Amino acid sequence: MWTFDDVPAARIQRVVGVTIDRPWLDHLRRSAVRLTTGCSAAVVSRRGLALTNQHCVLACAQGVSGAAGDALAEGFAADTLAAERRCPGMQAEVLVGVIDVSGPVFAAGAGKAGAAFVAAREEALSSAEARVCRGDGRLRCQVIGFFAGGQFKVYEFRRYDDVRLVFAPEFGVAFFGGDPDNFTFPRFDLDFAFLRLYDAGAPARTPTHLAWSARPPAAGEAVFMAGNPAASERGLSVSQLEALRDVELPLIGAERAELRGRLIAFSEASPENRRIAAAALFEAENAFKVVRQRAAALADPAFMAARRRDEAALKASLAADPRLAAELGDPWTDLEALREVQADQFIVWRQLENAAGGGSRLYAWARGLVRAAYERTRPSPTRLPEFADSRLPLLEKTLLDDTPAPAPLERLYLEFWLSKTREWLGADAPATAIMLGGQSPEALAARLGASALGDPARRRALWAGGVAAIEASDDPMIAYVRRTDPVSRAARRLWEDRVTGPSERAAEGILRARIAARPGEIYPDATFSPRLSWGVVAGVDASGGTGGAFTTLGGLYARATGAEPYRLPPRWLAARDRLDPATVLDFSTTNDIVGGNSGSPVVDGKGEIIGAAFDGNLASIVGDFAYDGARDRAIAVSTAAIGEALAKTYRRPGLLKELEER
Amino acid sequence: MWTFDDVPAARIQRVVGVTIDRPWLDHLRRSAVRLTTGCSAAVVSRRGLALTNQHCVLACAQGVSGAAGDALAEGFAADTLAAERRCPGMQAEVLVGVIDVSGPVFAAGAGKAGAAFVAAREEALSSAEARVCRGDGRLRCQVIGFFAGGQFKVYEFRRYDDVRLVFAPEFGVAFFGGDPDNFTFPRFDLDFAFLRLYDAGAPARTPTHLAWSARPPAAGEAVFMAGNPAASERGLSVSQLEALRDVELPLIGAERAELRGRLIAFSEASPENRRIAAAALFEAENAFKVVRQRAAALADPAFMAARRRDEAALKASLAADPRLAAELGDPWTDLEALREVQADQFIVWRQLENAAGGGSRLYAWARGLVRAAYERTRPSPTRLPEFADSRLPLLEKTLLDDTPAPAPLERLYLEFWLSKTREWLGADAPATAIMLGGQSPEALAARLGASALGDPARRRALWAGGVAAIEASDDPMIAYVRRTDPVSRAARRLWEDRVTGPSERAAEGILRARIAARPGEIYPDATFSPRLSWGVVAGVDASGGTGGAFTTLGGLYARATGAEPYRLPPRWLAARDRLDPATVLDFSTTNDIVGGNSGSPVVDGKGEIIGAAFDGNLASIVGDFAYDGARDRAIAVSTAAIGEALAKTYRRPGLLKELEER
Repeated sequence: MWTFDDVPAARIQRVVGVTIDRPWLDHLRRSAVRLTTGCSAAVVSRRGLALTNQHCVLACAQGVSGAAGDALAEGFAADTLAAERRCPGMQAEVLVGVIDVSGPVFAAGAGKAGAAFVAAREEALSSAEARVCRGDGRLRCQVIGFFAGGQFKVYEFRRYDDVRLVFAPEFGVAFFGGDPDNFTFPRFDLDFAFLRLYDAGAPARTPTHLAWSARPPAAGEAVFMAGNPAASERGLSVSQLEALRDVELPLIGAERAELRGRLIAFSEASPENRRIAAAALFEAENAFKVVRQRAAALADPAFMAARRRDEAALKASLAADPRLAAELGDPWTDLEALREVQADQFIVWRQLENAAGGGSRLYAWARGLVRAAYERTRPSPTRLPEFADSRLPLLEKTLLDDTPAPAPLERLYLEFWLSKTREWLGADAPATAIMLGGQSPEALAARLGASALGDPARRRALWAGGVAAIEASDDPMIAYVRRTDPVSRAARRLWEDRVTGPSERAAEGILRARIAARPGEIYPDATFSPRLSWGVVAGVDASGGTGGAFTTLGGLYARATGAEPYRLPPRWLAARDRLDPATVLDFSTTNDIVGGNSGSPVVDGKGEIIGAAFDGNLASIVGDFAYDGARDRAIAVSTAAIGEALAKTYRRPGLLKELEER
Repeated sequence: MWTFDDVPAARIQRVVGVTIDRPWLDHLRRSAVRLTTGCSAAVVSRRGLALTNQHCVLACAQGVSGAAGDALAEGFAADTLAAERRCPGMQAEVLVGVIDVSGPVFAAGAGKAGAAFVAAREEALSSAEARVCRGDGRLRCQVIGFFAGGQFKVYEFRRYDDVRLVFAPEFGVAFFGGDPDNFTFPRFDLDFAFLRLYDAGAPARTPTHLAWSARPPAAGEAVFMAGNPAASERGLSVSQLEALRDVELPLIGAERAELRGRLIAFSEASPENRRIAAAALFEAENAFKVVRQRAAALADPAFMAARRRDEAALKASLAADPRLAAELGDPWTDLEALREVQADQFIVWRQLENAAGGGSRLYAWARGLVRAAYERTRPSPTRLPEFADSRLPLLEKTLLDDTPAPAPLERLYLEFWLSKTREWLGADAPATAIMLGGQSPEALAARLGASALGDPARRRALWAGGVAAIEASDDPMIAYVRRTDPVSRAARRLWEDRVTGPSERAAEGILRARIAARPGEIYPDATFSPRLSWGVVAGVDASGGTGGAFTTLGGLYARATGAEPYRLPPRWLAARDRLDPATVLDFSTTNDIVGGNSGSPVVDGKGEIIGAAFDGNLASIVGDFAYDGARDRAIAVSTAAIGEALAKTYRRPGLLKELEER
């Protein structure tokens, strides 16, 4: 997960024998795409065509379903440019420049603490963003903190706010094996999709793009992934890991498990319910598996003992450098001191602020609109950071795009969130009284579900109308957020003041100690920003060999039982005899990637694309805390299989031709 | 949780000033009732009337619902004996004799280990039962192991296999406050119900019964509860607690949370779904809260540190007695050695044997019928213990009574169980292949749900027909169990051989060390057998005073918001002006009780009944591991409130008259 401006080229040359130079890196960086909906992609044609995963376009495919059929279940293919369908809420971004702004940011925070520290820094950050982008609408500038706040850089992205769905295979082949096979290898998923970036209503001109290679990966060959790992927590102290294990994961795990149960039973009530809940269920099951695996790692005495040893070694190495030790103090003890308030406030912060709404789009829209109206009356640097001027274009798109919010699903989310809020905060807690206002979660969810915010015109009017429109609105969800937002904001302030602020300062100290102990070997934690990962194609067999690094189309058919989730779509059953069973379908590599990397291009030493990453094995989930090259594997779908499928299953010569043009 | 033959009368006299003599104890024991469905009760009239909790008759009330209305939601009242409705599957038992058989049981197991040890003991136990009951159908004999296998006694019960529902209030007042208020105090639940024991089709003659007192409890007064605490684990070693925390509770917690979610969404699909899932949802939410609270305690460093200190003190005290130490060896190290196999096999044993079927009655019936057919071809002492001759009458009743098994709920349970089996064992595990037979959980559940075993006549025919009938049956559930039972039995054998057997022997050693360290102060772990608990009426306020020990009917109305779960039934809204608001509704006491005690009579120093226990506070859940008198509270509904409700809300003079007759 190296940043593109700090790649260990010498080490890569030494270990895998590939020479990475600046042009190679620049070409890959300018072909790699960040999707604001939480995924990665890569431009693969001169006309803005981008390869990503089918699971990265779930919401989009669900949204374009309708009279034309179920694009999720049956797949989607645009025969012409006109048939390409816009993905609401999705923006594509390509990194074009990086400017270090650590100096001014540190200066702004110096001598401050708690909320004042957070506010001063936020002000410095949003000023830096505005300075770099200078109001150019084609750009998005974002300050990204690296090394747990040890470094701040403005990332300048070319933004494409019009992204359209070109092709997606059936969910049944993209997510073949379903939840049981998720996070495992061998794996048999054709998890790819094509999007197209548009510019002023026409396909974007993208002379810089990755060359499409249809050759299969070779065991042991060096592979590189360029994507946007969302979040890792490699620097967590032992006390923070214990808080995760004892406080946060048990709650989140129980919450995801119950939500999953609700979504499953909801889905079974009707085919329509199944359709509208498919993406939500995928996400809930995925999240549950992640939480469960993380919890299992933290419950493993050997894992924790290793983390304790690492921490002790780091403390010893810091103690051996008296000048640095005097400067950094004892950040581990500072973190331990947060345990109590963290245990006490975590669930309040989560229910009232961080995960408020429980997934409801109506709630998220209403909160965005209400807060934006009030925040925009203040100077940009003094606003809540997500409402700074530099961030308004994406926010506006997120709030105003015509994204569907199916009423029964909204009600499910709202009921769930409100009932968990009452359960976890306590029926008699003052915050519960405010959030529920004396109503039952079911009755309140029904009332809020009657909101008219599903209509984008209403949202646009409220956005344009500002505070006056918000205060005049009698929409039930707007009224609800108006009434409850003060307690949500208070929960956030308390959390930032007493947990986030102190944690960030302590983490900065620990990180500096780590860098001092192992200079040049550490890359920053993931921050959903472009990174380069290098590794080799390899399985995980115990002998350390490379056997088991591939699956094939033949294996896919062998695994198909005809019963969910091992049921192949009709098109695939029909195409069986036409396909070459030896075609490599998925492959496993040693790359260090985490969530957010989904859709990352896999390129070979020549910089040609040979696959798209879509998952990791179970062990890799624990990679959030510590990467282990012997055990953690990334999983990718091969361009060879995509090409074979486009040619023989889907018969899309036009698409193939566009890919093969150089 | 003292056994009736070993009550510390001198200590009770010293601490609470009440004299407990043999006649007092015998009278209470012979009035106390065990309900085989998992609850306690007390005989309160000379005609077999028994007081228990409404939540102990949920399944019964659900079963008698139909054309006459929803007995769960609207309550149930029989105006005449003829209107009293039999509760299928429920047997009432009164303890009439106790015989110590430790000698022969120990002799049988001497020098054996693993499965051989378990089998030899089981044989000795079932022989002892048969000897005492001598085939008298009015009796049930059951060997109960105390002190983790340190003591075995035959308990001789008078059994009543015909138990009928007489009266139950509305679920909305019995479980007022619902899941949010469950396990809390102050509490406002009228959680009572009346059953009647029948003998040869007529009300049982019960000259021995508790005198009904309508007076409210007094703060600080001594109170006694006679009931059947189901299971406690006070003797668990630290390594066993860690295994619970790290392996078992995370899995069970996730499972209960997801089941709860499925049941909630299922319930919301229709009023009929809500009715048939009400008892199941109550149980799932209750179980989830228990698991969550236990997990929280085990995640609390202070709690675990206290357990470690206790264990160290016990080891030190054992070491100081070289003779005993030489005899007992090091049971703690023996238990630690089980960690790996336990972690490995727990989920296999749970999914294939211990919790197989996931709650499906069809599965439970089929397994009982299939196993009974084969087991009954062998001599009683060599069978699986639950099929010994002495246990067949209750088994037969459980299998053959006309208990409803609503098809949609069956399907939900089966789908859930099968999908978790695949998820937790792994899609490619050999056991998964056997349990699913290549089908999806959904398809298999639908197929098994088509079983005709819901018809008791079919079950009776299979019971009577033995192996021939089982082997000839083409019922899908019978065929399924025939096919899968060998792997279930293998999972059970492995677990008993490598976990249960060794654990029991180690626990016996630890228990003997504990008794040696604190002679006369230890009562055995709960075993769902009659026990006496003593305590005082007390709240839990920080000052240690008795304030806050009561709630009143007035408080119930004050808490009613009109929204679920704080919505009072119409009868209660109508009766408000007639009721005395000062009537004590619920009260809290220091008694040490656990699940299974629900429905236990609360008697005063004179032996008169003043309430029925129905819950504990949140802290008391952790009482499974260690009771803390400063923190743990039992919660009971008062006879004063029951009387007031019968007189003024329900207007049942006949029932009141029967209670007041002496």
